[in-house]
Amino acid sequence: MEVDLIISADDIKKEKITGKSVVIIDMLRATSVITTAIYNGCDSVIPVLTIEEALEKASEGRGKYILGGERKALKIEGFDCANSPLEYKEDIVKGKTLIMTTSNGTRAIKGSLGASSVLIGALINAKAVAEKLLALDNDVVIINAGTCGQFSMDDFICSGYIINCLLSQRKDIGLTDISKTANYVYEENEDIISFIKYASHYKRIKELNLEKDLDYCCSKDIIDIVPMYKNGIIALFDEQKEEQIV
Amino acid sequence: MEVDLIISADDIKKEKITGKSVVIIDMLRATSVITTAIYNGCDSVIPVLTIEEALEKASEGRGKYILGGERKALKIEGFDCANSPLEYKEDIVKGKTLIMTTSNGTRAIKGSLGASSVLIGALINAKAVAEKLLALDNDVVIINAGTCGQFSMDDFICSGYIINCLLSQRKDIGLTDISKTANYVYEENEDIISFIKYASHYKRIKELNLEKDLDYCCSKDIIDIVPMYKNGIIALFDEQKEEQIV
Repeated sequence: MEVDLIISADDIKKEKITGKSVVIIDMLRATSVITTAIYNGCDSVIPVLTIEEALEKASEGRGKYILGGERKALKIEGFDCANSPLEYKEDIVKGKTLIMTTSNGTRAIKGSLGASSVLIGALINAKAVAEKLLALDNDVVIINAGTCGQFSMDDFICSGYIINCLLSQRKDIGLTDISKTANYVYEENEDIISFIKYASHYKRIKELNLEKDLDYCCSKDIIDIVPMYKNGIIALFDEQKEEQIV
Repeated sequence: MEVDLIISADDIKKEKITGKSVVIIDMLRATSVITTAIYNGCDSVIPVLTIEEALEKASEGRGKYILGGERKALKIEGFDCANSPLEYKEDIVKGKTLIMTTSNGTRAIKGSLGASSVLIGALINAKAVAEKLLALDNDVVIINAGTCGQFSMDDFICSGYIINCLLSQRKDIGLTDISKTANYVYEENEDIISFIKYASHYKRIKELNLEKDLDYCCSKDIIDIVPMYKNGIIALFDEQKEEQIV
């Protein structure tokens, strides 16, 4: 098993991910939102690239859908929820389908075409992601959503923690130089905050007084499920049956 | 002044470098070779992409040219020198033109089209590179040649040291997340070796018993010149006259 890493949604190259197990990371905050929503009983998440697409899809049956996401880290007009994982509580999401559009995370998810499996990862479910990757026993590419096509320190250290979880379970894992560096950064900053407090995206969220989101998104392993992206939706899938678990 | 970083020759995007001061880093070993050759009196270096191109150019007047470079870190058949900086001594290079082709470095140099200035950087001339960048007073993009399109730990920490030199001279420099991470990695590993001993490319060179090259390339600031790439050649240029210094 070899683990590679792509530093932003703009840097995805099809030949690097084809046939691999891919993990999408946008810990601040899209993949934290998705993981939380599914954990709280949301049926599935449909990632879309544009606000227009989201509104059109929702108009098919407004009652069964929740509209969520952000532009410039803020709630979108006419949407139900912003990009704060704390909003996606059970009474809001249970039995519903979340239509989601964000600046970076949904773009990375949609860019994963050709991968054999696409896992949704964040710090809040990192250990579960590592276990799923070990069960899949395939080469891994961790795609950091990044921020506007740029490398993001938060996604990088989150990837480092997932790699660290893999290494703690299995010794014969090959790491590319960038995967080694992500693991190194995590090992030197196990508390996470000491590193990502310098991240530009962290600063942006702090300026918007979203400290509670930051605390939540930086909590390791509080959720033990791994949403997966398949046939245009994100949900929990039964691997044997290749069917969504409802 | 803002400093950004591109992790490999395959990841160069024209819009990121247009109009910027670009530094090309391939510390193991192409940019260490070029810097050493020019320091030892080589007139200029012509970077070419293919072996055929190198041989064709040299056939124009074999006496005035030296052929140098590598494929898979080894000397190319029919060439005068390999990719070891220690070969490029004064008695070999003085007054000659070096035609050079390497797997990663020359590709990164040729990919820098559109930049306003292109500097050749390595650990051996890092401080001089930082001083030149400060004199140019323009936004900076450090291009890591990387290894076969992949991020390289050696080029990354070398970039971190250049960024660290910039910060020690000027406080108001903006760093992207990836530049901050490179600087962080350097600050935690000022001896260089403690970090790059894990680099895949370092291992390859060690396997080939080229420890002396490694020691040399990992020596900071032993050379105080900065070769630049302009009009297809690498040389020392007089900035005022925009002419090559001979």
